[in-house]
Amino acid sequence: MLNSVFIATSLDGYIADRNDGLDWLHLIPNPDNLDLGWSDFMDRVDAIVMGRKTFEKVCTFDCDWPYSKPVFVLSNTLTSLPDDCEGKAELIEGPLSGVVKAVHQKGHSRLYIDGGATVQSFLKEDLIDEMIITVIPVLLGGGASLFGELPEPMEFEHVNTEVLLGAMVQNHYRRKR
Amino acid sequence: MLNSVFIATSLDGYIADRNDGLDWLHLIPNPDNLDLGWSDFMDRVDAIVMGRKTFEKVCTFDCDWPYSKPVFVLSNTLTSLPDDCEGKAELIEGPLSGVVKAVHQKGHSRLYIDGGATVQSFLKEDLIDEMIITVIPVLLGGGASLFGELPEPMEFEHVNTEVLLGAMVQNHYRRKR
Repeated sequence: MLNSVFIATSLDGYIADRNDGLDWLHLIPNPDNLDLGWSDFMDRVDAIVMGRKTFEKVCTFDCDWPYSKPVFVLSNTLTSLPDDCEGKAELIEGPLSGVVKAVHQKGHSRLYIDGGATVQSFLKEDLIDEMIITVIPVLLGGGASLFGELPEPMEFEHVNTEVLLGAMVQNHYRRKR
Repeated sequence: MLNSVFIATSLDGYIADRNDGLDWLHLIPNPDNLDLGWSDFMDRVDAIVMGRKTFEKVCTFDCDWPYSKPVFVLSNTLTSLPDDCEGKAELIEGPLSGVVKAVHQKGHSRLYIDGGATVQSFLKEDLIDEMIITVIPVLLGGGASLFGELPEPMEFEHVNTEVLLGAMVQNHYRRKR
């Protein structure tokens, strides 16, 4: 069982700019449309657990539904998902340990945890096992932070670092327990 | 003329923990006491401009004065430095552009800008040309942040990335202008 994060941040640790914008993610030209480790990562997970805000953002993307694995949307406020999510995503709520248990019971043990607030909640309960973080070389100077306050420091092991497109640094860390 | 940052941060971007502590900097065993690029970097600068808090912290270190280059201590509150700083460090005050000009006029053109508040002030006025940031694989969950709010996003070019002691990731960025 493994809970993984795969996300991009600015140099100053933001995952979205002040206007919730993501344009800066495309700052580095990617003419061959390399997937920057995305499909390898997706091959390694069984399902995605994402926060409501991230889900709503994904729904605005001008592309097909980007996930080939089941998506669980964490929300304590939504009562239903749009009809066209049928078979792609389902709502899940409650305390995180229960959420994880419920998703495991559906046969998914390697989970991609996505969304700033969701990652922060998982980290607060020490439920993240690995993080693959791609750093875009820009200081945004404000926005939504990937990391938040923690009750205790948490050590990680360095697994790998790769420079992508000569500009982005992708770091892979594993929780040291 | 070049203003450079050389600093270590936690994974979540802190340069000191909640108690202003730096013990976590030594989290990764360094049995051969490698200097992690420090002396190469110091060879490249002519002088150090540091904030008052950093200066006061350095003064508590249980070691000899660590700098072989002139140190300028930015402060708008101190009126003098301890007597034993004579010949090693001097006070400097005023708006940053004036500070930089004054240090240049003393014959120092490549400056090491140190201290969280000082780096943030320099960044706010777009006075940082390069940053070498060594990331220690720990989430501190709180403390003093390296980066602060900025009026505008600032792009950097990736120069180099090196993994040190199999655990720390040292990234070198240059301001894209």
